[in-house]
Amino acid sequence: MSCLKITKVDCILTQPGCRLVVVKVSTSEPGLFGLGCATFTQRHIAVKAAVDGHIGPFVIGKDPRNIEDIWQTAMVNGYWRNGPVLNNAISGVDMALWDIKGKLAGMPCYQLWGGKCRGGAAVYTHAGGASNQEALDDVRRCMAQGYHFIRCQIGGYPGLAGKQPRPDGAPPGDYFYPREKLYQIPELFEYLRGELPPDIELLHDVHERLAPIDAVYLAKALEPYRLFFLEDVLAPEDLEWFANIRQVCATPIAMGELFNHPREMTPLIANRLIDFIRVHVSQIGGITPALKLARFCEAFGVRTAWHGPGDVSPIGMAANVHLDISCINFGVQEWAGRNALEYEMFPGTPVVKYGYVYPNEKPGLGIDFNEALAAKYPCTDENPTWTVSRLPDGTLWRP
Amino acid sequence: MSCLKITKVDCILTQPGCRLVVVKVSTSEPGLFGLGCATFTQRHIAVKAAVDGHIGPFVIGKDPRNIEDIWQTAMVNGYWRNGPVLNNAISGVDMALWDIKGKLAGMPCYQLWGGKCRGGAAVYTHAGGASNQEALDDVRRCMAQGYHFIRCQIGGYPGLAGKQPRPDGAPPGDYFYPREKLYQIPELFEYLRGELPPDIELLHDVHERLAPIDAVYLAKALEPYRLFFLEDVLAPEDLEWFANIRQVCATPIAMGELFNHPREMTPLIANRLIDFIRVHVSQIGGITPALKLARFCEAFGVRTAWHGPGDVSPIGMAANVHLDISCINFGVQEWAGRNALEYEMFPGTPVVKYGYVYPNEKPGLGIDFNEALAAKYPCTDENPTWTVSRLPDGTLWRP
Amino acid sequence: MSCLKITKVDCILTQPGCRLVVVKVSTSEPGLFGLGCATFTQRHIAVKAAVDGHIGPFVIGKDPRNIEDIWQTAMVNGYWRNGPVLNNAISGVDMALWDIKGKLAGMPCYQLWGGKCRGGAAVYTHAGGASNQEALDDVRRCMAQGYHFIRCQIGGYPGLAGKQPRPDGAPPGDYFYPREKLYQIPELFEYLRGELPPDIELLHDVHERLAPIDAVYLAKALEPYRLFFLEDVLAPEDLEWFANIRQVCATPIAMGELFNHPREMTPLIANRLIDFIRVHVSQIGGITPALKLARFCEAFGVRTAWHGPGDVSPIGMAANVHLDISCINFGVQEWAGRNALEYEMFPGTPVVKYGYVYPNEKPGLGIDFNEALAAKYPCTDENPTWTVSRLPDGTLWRP
Amino acid sequence: MSCLKITKVDCILTQPGCRLVVVKVSTSEPGLFGLGCATFTQRHIAVKAAVDGHIGPFVIGKDPRNIEDIWQTAMVNGYWRNGPVLNNAISGVDMALWDIKGKLAGMPCYQLWGGKCRGGAAVYTHAGGASNQEALDDVRRCMAQGYHFIRCQIGGYPGLAGKQPRPDGAPPGDYFYPREKLYQIPELFEYLRGELPPDIELLHDVHERLAPIDAVYLAKALEPYRLFFLEDVLAPEDLEWFANIRQVCATPIAMGELFNHPREMTPLIANRLIDFIRVHVSQIGGITPALKLARFCEAFGVRTAWHGPGDVSPIGMAANVHLDISCINFGVQEWAGRNALEYEMFPGTPVVKYGYVYPNEKPGLGIDFNEALAAKYPCTDENPTWTVSRLPDGTLWRP
Repeated sequence: MSCLKITKVDCILTQPGCRLVVVKVSTSEPGLFGLGCATFTQRHIAVKAAVDGHIGPFVIGKDPRNIEDIWQTAMVNGYWRNGPVLNNAISGVDMALWDIKGKLAGMPCYQLWGGKCRGGAAVYTHAGGASNQEALDDVRRCMAQGYHFIRCQIGGYPGLAGKQPRPDGAPPGDYFYPREKLYQIPELFEYLRGELPPDIELLHDVHERLAPIDAVYLAKALEPYRLFFLEDVLAPEDLEWFANIRQVCATPIAMGELFNHPREMTPLIANRLIDFIRVHVSQIGGITPALKLARFCEAFGVRTAWHGPGDVSPIGMAANVHLDISCINFGVQEWAGRNALEYEMFPGTPVVKYGYVYPNEKPGLGIDFNEALAAKYPCTDENPTWTVSRLPDGTLWRP
Repeated sequence: MSCLKITKVDCILTQPGCRLVVVKVSTSEPGLFGLGCATFTQRHIAVKAAVDGHIGPFVIGKDPRNIEDIWQTAMVNGYWRNGPVLNNAISGVDMALWDIKGKLAGMPCYQLWGGKCRGGAAVYTHAGGASNQEALDDVRRCMAQGYHFIRCQIGGYPGLAGKQPRPDGAPPGDYFYPREKLYQIPELFEYLRGELPPDIELLHDVHERLAPIDAVYLAKALEPYRLFFLEDVLAPEDLEWFANIRQVCATPIAMGELFNHPREMTPLIANRLIDFIRVHVSQIGGITPALKLARFCEAFGVRTAWHGPGDVSPIGMAANVHLDISCINFGVQEWAGRNALEYEMFPGTPVVKYGYVYPNEKPGLGIDFNEALAAKYPCTDENPTWTVSRLPDGTLWRP
Repeated sequence: MSCLKITKVDCILTQPGCRLVVVKVSTSEPGLFGLGCATFTQRHIAVKAAVDGHIGPFVIGKDPRNIEDIWQTAMVNGYWRNGPVLNNAISGVDMALWDIKGKLAGMPCYQLWGGKCRGGAAVYTHAGGASNQEALDDVRRCMAQGYHFIRCQIGGYPGLAGKQPRPDGAPPGDYFYPREKLYQIPELFEYLRGELPPDIELLHDVHERLAPIDAVYLAKALEPYRLFFLEDVLAPEDLEWFANIRQVCATPIAMGELFNHPREMTPLIANRLIDFIRVHVSQIGGITPALKLARFCEAFGVRTAWHGPGDVSPIGMAANVHLDISCINFGVQEWAGRNALEYEMFPGTPVVKYGYVYPNEKPGLGIDFNEALAAKYPCTDENPTWTVSRLPDGTLWRP
Repeated sequence: MSCLKITKVDCILTQPGCRLVVVKVSTSEPGLFGLGCATFTQRHIAVKAAVDGHIGPFVIGKDPRNIEDIWQTAMVNGYWRNGPVLNNAISGVDMALWDIKGKLAGMPCYQLWGGKCRGGAAVYTHAGGASNQEALDDVRRCMAQGYHFIRCQIGGYPGLAGKQPRPDGAPPGDYFYPREKLYQIPELFEYLRGELPPDIELLHDVHERLAPIDAVYLAKALEPYRLFFLEDVLAPEDLEWFANIRQVCATPIAMGELFNHPREMTPLIANRLIDFIRVHVSQIGGITPALKLARFCEAFGVRTAWHGPGDVSPIGMAANVHLDISCINFGVQEWAGRNALEYEMFPGTPVVKYGYVYPNEKPGLGIDFNEALAAKYPCTDENPTWTVSRLPDGTLWRP
């Protein structure tokens, strides 16, 4: 097989739950193909166009084994680089190439990256409710299922609705008042810590919804409740403020699901301002940069906690889990469950048992894709968007 | 209208409440004029002289549409620049030119600056009393009027009188003892937080009356009461101390009503040492620099809270509100009410409903000026001054 | 016209020279529409999909006058933000909204932004050759055409081919050896300075093709030749190195055509590490962020030099020129000429006379678009890419 | 092969040129073994003892595929860690495990790490002489052999003998006077640059023989001669001085062959104080840390230039070349030639053609080991040491 070429790149949209973007890379070797995740669930049409119109044609004819050269050339050959659409398109190809690499080696991908560092990857799951009592009940439900790491929210996203009146002419959107978190969230965790065994690990996600100084306040106010981590307490526009948080408290900090530019990550990590890196692997361009990022974090004592809700396809989740199992500085894996249709559409999708997730032992990423089934679940949304969160006066408040 | 010129610049002093300085710019287009605010209520005579003797004559004959060029040349053509007298004189012309621009465009000024970002601008109002109980009652009175953001003082300016004896030969002035704030103010907010719903936003204004290290102490002592912001906790002479405040607490900081030099603002903002910029728009030279300052603050996550008591004329307040409604990083607008005479003298003056202030929809700043009525309320004070605050031993203590 | 809505968003690809992406925003007011530039010439298909599939549908039904709110919500409502595809899509709409705003006001856009600061905008043009002599001849040709600011290259992009042999199995690409610039470019400018009048302004573009330490060397080596600026001497991946350049020499630095993330710009400017900001306006999201960036730069003494070759459409160039003419801190405008077909397809395209470019005086951006003519020049390239530059050993070397 | 175990670890000393330390790891799979380099040529006996007495027994029985877990546990399970003896012992096993991994995958190791990034790896070779003329002749000899990157020394190590008299009782050692380099080396390169084509890349190795301030002087004095890099201009005891070098010149800096502690590397790289990392791969613990180090350097624009003289065994050199060919931030590979006996004893040893070195295409590292032949060349030195360099007065001067 000294001569091996990429012959075809397909980009498939499907919606077994979230809108997913799957990339399939076929080769000159009959039956040898790879699958990758390019899911940007709010901009799936643009990602598909980037794969079909640009990245796919660019890689056809190239040797699929030269992953690093392909990744690097794909990144710069549009001249302008980075950004979520192009990164996802490149990720789709990149993950597929690692899948092919594993199949060529006859090994699961984690073996290529140094083998197993642990038996399984501990996951954290999502709990929450509209009140402290509801949230506690939901945490207990998760504990009963074997979870030990539990993220707990109150009032969902963006949070409980504020009580302030709206002005005339307020535009449509999800209205809330972010500063109510400043007392609601500490009260929630004071309540939970009073009711739960002390060894249960609790997490919380602010979802970038606070003004910077309020984020510092909340991080400090939550310090007594020993969170495993506090996630996205600042928006990516406000990264300098992590230094302020470090100055006033020792709350562990997780950040990064919104990152797609190296300049967002490198200084935070190199200055040891965060404790867990939370990037969405396809949003930074796939496994190639994620592996490098994991190694980079290792040098600074930062642990991984890859983004893992339903907007990561089962293929992307498999990539997460292969990284989790093989990187020494793994911290915890987000896990929001997969539905039955996803298990049917993506045979090999990782499973969770007693709070741990496991890769399977098939070569590559170990995920198959039932394209015929996927075709029955097309993406039909006219104009999918993330929430538009607004303050009581109607101001857009970034999510 | 390819040829348009400034033909006349009038500066009118009037006192419907505070002493106000109004600038009217007339043009070669019949009926086309603009109004601006140049109010420096303690130095109104000097401002009028600067307009009548320098800035007015300088701009006559120029095209009123070239606002940027006029502002820049007016700033540097006396060679020595900045300072409250000249800045206000330039502001009077600058606001009038933006008023003219809006009239030429047939649009309210906020439309020129990108349109509406919110339904209305949330305001904070002033409450206070001689005791904690009085202050609480006053806060409740404001809440009943629909206000959600309430600044609360105790003992007015400069604060409750101290109990220390005075030495012989103590000069006249307002005597007080600043360090009494170190326990009075935290006690006030502990009391208010115990009595009020948690979502009411409370603010406090120190009015630059503390020694630097005492300001750091107070900012930290107030942290548990979740102020929306703490205003002017340091004097403009002590700006370096804001870094010390950041090191020890997460109390939100507002600063700037005394600023009139770029060097006071730029490093504070670029180093993210304050959370709200509180400049008096006419004191920095009008709308042109305020728009730039708002954009500058946006890059650093700093929000606007333009100075807005009675020493801002209704025209200046309209400028504030047009900025408030169109700048994404608006925070809150100070609002101390306007009296009936002002509404009569300045038709179009903004109104507050349920805690929000609104611009009107007329072209430009939307404010008219009844000059005949104004002439009936001339400024008659011989020598108007700000308070002279003194320590118990007679030392002048800067306000 | 109290009720005005966006009714249609069209994205048109055409190729009168470079591949261009034009966005047309239609409104509920008959005949009222705006035009914007969304040109990412190497990823035009992805940009069109982003407009057609996401940004267009999102803005339909909204009031086109609320530019700021639309820009901000469009940026964050995909949750993941920034990046060249989405920024261009947003730019297409944003420029069109400013075009509409100007038409509603009956004013050229520069009037909305404060009027004229200068008579015309000085441009720099491109010269070069395969040898020092050829380059000199070309500079003289430009001088004869009235240009005073002239960028001079040797050997085009990526530079003269290196003399090193290639290894077996070297992949396809444009081979060159970047370190040859370290003596070729200083020799070129020593030669030019010896032959040309001392007041001719010379510029040079490194096009991000040097290793960081070599970039520092070159900036220092060029210091004696008094460049007007040295452009893109470092890649966006190496921005920290501008501090090293500042430490060792006083060569004026221009940077930014590759930028599309605020984090690339803000620290460079706030730390005064560059002298000219060179962003491609549509790559950062259009006029709204460019206006803010210009104001931001003004606070730090940084001048504008907006990107302006053929991959900026005539509409985008008009946006550049309206900014140039109205921003006080304008430095120079890049100008690579427009072909006859572009002038026909885009009536109103700016013209250069004696080294200055001028906007026209029509309302808005002042550019019309002959869609029927554009349809005759579709984009036909299968897979357009930027160069793939490689070192003699075959290593990809980022452009 | 779900069950695979390490069954035997041999450590073999041999001296086909330098004293080499080879580690052979055998497995439960018949015929499946790996080879690694553990060469610390001045402390070979201690390394062998560390393998035979500690590291070997520790890994026997473990699954050889779990490289990361084995490397990490071997590093910390003596509690005290780092240091050249233990790092080399671990490297011997680590390289052997990667050799096994490649054999299991049926792939050369570079394929596991992302495939080829270049056709071949450019090498630099060693030239020098007792005079400028001799050095020039030797450089020309290298050029005639196809080398383009040439390191040039004068007077070998430690340099030309100084002319100062010795005091009575001066101890034995290699006498020299380091400050003579301050004029000899710049004179050498001024001479060479005058005689050689400008595109020939010249390098120089100071071998840590200068006082810190003299190193700064030399780096600056060499700037005009455009070295590709200046190596080991400071000793590992003086790393803070690299910042001083950066302040005064743009001479490219290579450093690291003496490093074996992460704390020596991380700050230098993260602060961008060096341009090339020159570590001896076995001295830092093998391929596992070298791969991570390469990724780490990539984030900061630092390129690799792995140590490569005769004290790196052919197996270690193969590891270098597999890294060179697959890491995007490869800079250049040191190459001092291999003798005929080494090619016979280590079938598969990399070869250089026209200035490029290539890995072979066999699975794993691609090197075999003729143990019978090795046994005929045992290490016989009683007490091998590095040079003892002394100043004219007899002071030991670190090498």
